[in-house]
Amino acid sequence: MVLDLVDKHQETLQAAVQALHKRTFFAHFPENPSPDTYGDTVDKEAQTSFKERLHTRFEELLQPEADDWVGQEESPYEQQPLGITYPFFEPETLVAQAENAFHVWRKVEPAMRAFILIESLERLRERFFEIAYATMHTTGQAFLMSFQASGPHAADRALEAVAAGYEELTRFPESAEWEKPMGKYNLKLQKSWVAVPKGIALVIGCSTFPTWNTVPGLYASLVTGNPVLVKPHPKAVLPIALVVAQIQKVLQENGLDPAICQLAVDAENRLITKELAEHRKIKLIDYTGSTEFGNYLEQLPGKTTFTEKAGVNSVILDSVEDLGKVVQNLAFSVSLYSGQMCTAPQNFFIPEAGITAGDEQIPYEEVVQKLSEAVSGLVNNPKAAPHVLGAIQNQATTDRVKAAKGKVVLNTCDFSNTQFANARTCSPVILEADATDKESYSRELFGPIMLVIKTKDTAQSVELAQELALSHGAISCGAYTTNPQVKEQIKDAMSLAGTPVSFNLTGGIYLNQNASFSDFHVTGGNPAGNASFTNPEFVIKRFTWVGFREPVSA
Amino acid sequence: MVLDLVDKHQETLQAAVQALHKRTFFAHFPENPSPDTYGDTVDKEAQTSFKERLHTRFEELLQPEADDWVGQEESPYEQQPLGITYPFFEPETLVAQAENAFHVWRKVEPAMRAFILIESLERLRERFFEIAYATMHTTGQAFLMSFQASGPHAADRALEAVAAGYEELTRFPESAEWEKPMGKYNLKLQKSWVAVPKGIALVIGCSTFPTWNTVPGLYASLVTGNPVLVKPHPKAVLPIALVVAQIQKVLQENGLDPAICQLAVDAENRLITKELAEHRKIKLIDYTGSTEFGNYLEQLPGKTTFTEKAGVNSVILDSVEDLGKVVQNLAFSVSLYSGQMCTAPQNFFIPEAGITAGDEQIPYEEVVQKLSEAVSGLVNNPKAAPHVLGAIQNQATTDRVKAAKGKVVLNTCDFSNTQFANARTCSPVILEADATDKESYSRELFGPIMLVIKTKDTAQSVELAQELALSHGAISCGAYTTNPQVKEQIKDAMSLAGTPVSFNLTGGIYLNQNASFSDFHVTGGNPAGNASFTNPEFVIKRFTWVGFREPVSA
Repeated sequence: MVLDLVDKHQETLQAAVQALHKRTFFAHFPENPSPDTYGDTVDKEAQTSFKERLHTRFEELLQPEADDWVGQEESPYEQQPLGITYPFFEPETLVAQAENAFHVWRKVEPAMRAFILIESLERLRERFFEIAYATMHTTGQAFLMSFQASGPHAADRALEAVAAGYEELTRFPESAEWEKPMGKYNLKLQKSWVAVPKGIALVIGCSTFPTWNTVPGLYASLVTGNPVLVKPHPKAVLPIALVVAQIQKVLQENGLDPAICQLAVDAENRLITKELAEHRKIKLIDYTGSTEFGNYLEQLPGKTTFTEKAGVNSVILDSVEDLGKVVQNLAFSVSLYSGQMCTAPQNFFIPEAGITAGDEQIPYEEVVQKLSEAVSGLVNNPKAAPHVLGAIQNQATTDRVKAAKGKVVLNTCDFSNTQFANARTCSPVILEADATDKESYSRELFGPIMLVIKTKDTAQSVELAQELALSHGAISCGAYTTNPQVKEQIKDAMSLAGTPVSFNLTGGIYLNQNASFSDFHVTGGNPAGNASFTNPEFVIKRFTWVGFREPVSA
Repeated sequence: MVLDLVDKHQETLQAAVQALHKRTFFAHFPENPSPDTYGDTVDKEAQTSFKERLHTRFEELLQPEADDWVGQEESPYEQQPLGITYPFFEPETLVAQAENAFHVWRKVEPAMRAFILIESLERLRERFFEIAYATMHTTGQAFLMSFQASGPHAADRALEAVAAGYEELTRFPESAEWEKPMGKYNLKLQKSWVAVPKGIALVIGCSTFPTWNTVPGLYASLVTGNPVLVKPHPKAVLPIALVVAQIQKVLQENGLDPAICQLAVDAENRLITKELAEHRKIKLIDYTGSTEFGNYLEQLPGKTTFTEKAGVNSVILDSVEDLGKVVQNLAFSVSLYSGQMCTAPQNFFIPEAGITAGDEQIPYEEVVQKLSEAVSGLVNNPKAAPHVLGAIQNQATTDRVKAAKGKVVLNTCDFSNTQFANARTCSPVILEADATDKESYSRELFGPIMLVIKTKDTAQSVELAQELALSHGAISCGAYTTNPQVKEQIKDAMSLAGTPVSFNLTGGIYLNQNASFSDFHVTGGNPAGNASFTNPEFVIKRFTWVGFREPVSA
């Protein structure tokens, strides 16, 4: 079995490592959920399987008898509990099992770990539709995003982490003969090096992207030899439970302890995240979520942490070729999954004198008006809106949108979803603020909230976008300028704020999207997070190089 | 000038990058201070130059007019102040100058930064003897170690950091065209990436290895585009002042701001380390020194720190081929620079039943006796002792050796140095402890102190060595065993404690030595330090990858 995996996945691994360094388009898992690719029956079967899971126990995990069965998920489309329960284990039980598994997994060769993990991803491929429905009915994402983000895109991000880890683990020789000329004789030492995994890893998931944001840390820790406890958000367990179950199956098939990867759920009245994070045996922590909790994790002593926290993403409008295309693009960006993406833009900086579009000067008011019309047009298009906006994961987001303060340009509305009459929905609200009123726009307002900020000029827009990124974090930035000098200024300012910039996007690509093997996700260089999918730092901090040496016998 | 540097150093850079990955013997700077290599006159000139510097101002730095002139160095060989003074600047002045320099230096291409830095090292080559006498009369190292450690070995470690930094900075493409097939059309984006330096770096030196422990962080921060403030230990300024002056000269010759690298000395009553370390504009900190201060630095928020702190290094004695050779080797290891190396062994674990040597079983007492005789033999050899032991940098070390408690096997003595009658000297003391008396051996006793610990058996020796490394840190470990299984057990146990192991060393190689481009110095995997010379982590944490993208115009 094990040898088969080498033959099966050698090419995938090599191609993935190469792709990391080419950074041109590369995707191993097809993102189009078409029957041609995935078969005619799989969608239907996944729908049935999802329905059959409701109000039952999730019994696929290869973990011992549970201390309890717990579950708190509800569908944002139905606003009804899913009723699925998962096995609950005491943190000490999970850690003890992980520690046993550590001493097995760390001794598996890096290449073999990579092949086993790739096998788990290939097997997940057959379950992408199942994961999609699980994602849809926990996060509120529309079907296509649920499929792509939690299925092929997540799997590609996982493969990226495997490739990056494998590359780093094999970057120094396993052994070498060191021979130092000493004049009359040579000193000869046989040397060897091992990449020693740090220990038990904890991966803490979020409610909006339960697999996409979890699998990079999960696979990065696994490929580098660390057993993992996956602690999902209590409201979004099923998508990642399916992933963990699949990893466990592949581990077992290859004669390995399934406890190398365990699901660690909270009970309703027993949140175990802090207990696990503070456990002295937990050495690595991956986290996606609030800034407050992320900061708490980052300062825990004796841990290596990888965080993605909140950010305030800016769009700088300076000059455009075709304003119509620009506002269409931005309206989509802010509406996609109702602004519940960490990469969604929030602050739109527009100079008080307006912007140039081709040869024309468009007044500030008109730019705002056009943005508003583009958003309205999208929200009021019944064929598009439900598939773009999806549903709202958490009632608090809806409440935040409705309570948002400022000069209203466009009100939010509960648009109706013909397929799900009971869906929790919310469309983008647009509010205006003045550049001087910093407090109003200097924090993340998670959800579909657009703040239009009138600035003195583009220089001020850039300065504010940089300042916000440096002090509050930013994960993405959009900029529109036809002026090469302004572009260079924006690049320089935002690079110092550790924020990637998408320039002049129109058409079918949006600033909130990013591509595995090409776009680094989060830079680690501002308060929005200390880690990046997947730069070398994301993997090498998970192990330690240790060397041995001995004189060569004559 | 600049183009010349490319031609001059291209080959050196390529060879150094290659050496990082081969990890066979590589040295760019010759370690033998012979006239054949370095010329007939340079030693004499350096001695004269050192004498002429005494009681004068160090005026070689290209820094503005000083706020004050300060100096506290004294020679451990003469126990007299050197009387050399250095320009003192207010931290705010240093930071302001570094910030200006940052915006110049970060825009210099990585390759050009590497060539400029290599040029500075090549120019230092001419000053190795000068640096050697400066090191000798601040640290107390004997001449040969002063020359090798502060000269060629330090320069090789600096070159290693330059090579590692350059490699990481050029590991991803500057730009790529990303083209995603969308069925009927392709999405095309032009992408580019920059490695953005984190900001102003602070490198805090130690008193015993003022250049060797400083230049890796200094050159690593510089090659990755960060300006550096070098804060030497107040008792060991001259060696690194010469390095900083040389870097500044090369920067100025190449039309760059010398403030890219500044010397930042303490005044006698104004220690500026904490003020600098806590300054919000300082982003990177390299440190060698006490555990207490290192821990303080590691927990400072908003900084990336690289530390080397104290450790408790163990020697595990299980079985040997020739005990005579082994004790000779160990006696040298503990005597070299009177145990003032961070890699010097302290705790010697010997089973109560003794050890096997060839076919013989040597009782515990006899092993201890032989160790003691080997140390005595070395200390009482007037031709060797002064050149091995050197002098004691700090009176506190002598006091610690004299006050060390335990069952005395060998007393320390003030051996006499014929060349320097007034030298502060101290030879190794050997004390016995029982394995059960953990307190006596569970901390670093800096200086020539050997603790012989009687254990139940080798398994207990290994367990204790691992436990000590995990809880108190370790930088090196020596192990003697002829049993392959025991060797594997030691490798496994010490790898989990992030400690490199030298097996069965005899003859001319010692466990406290380590080689650039082959041995990682400190692993970062235990409390002895969080960084390693020079693994990829040592350089990549000094910059952030930031990407830009834009649709390709039709």
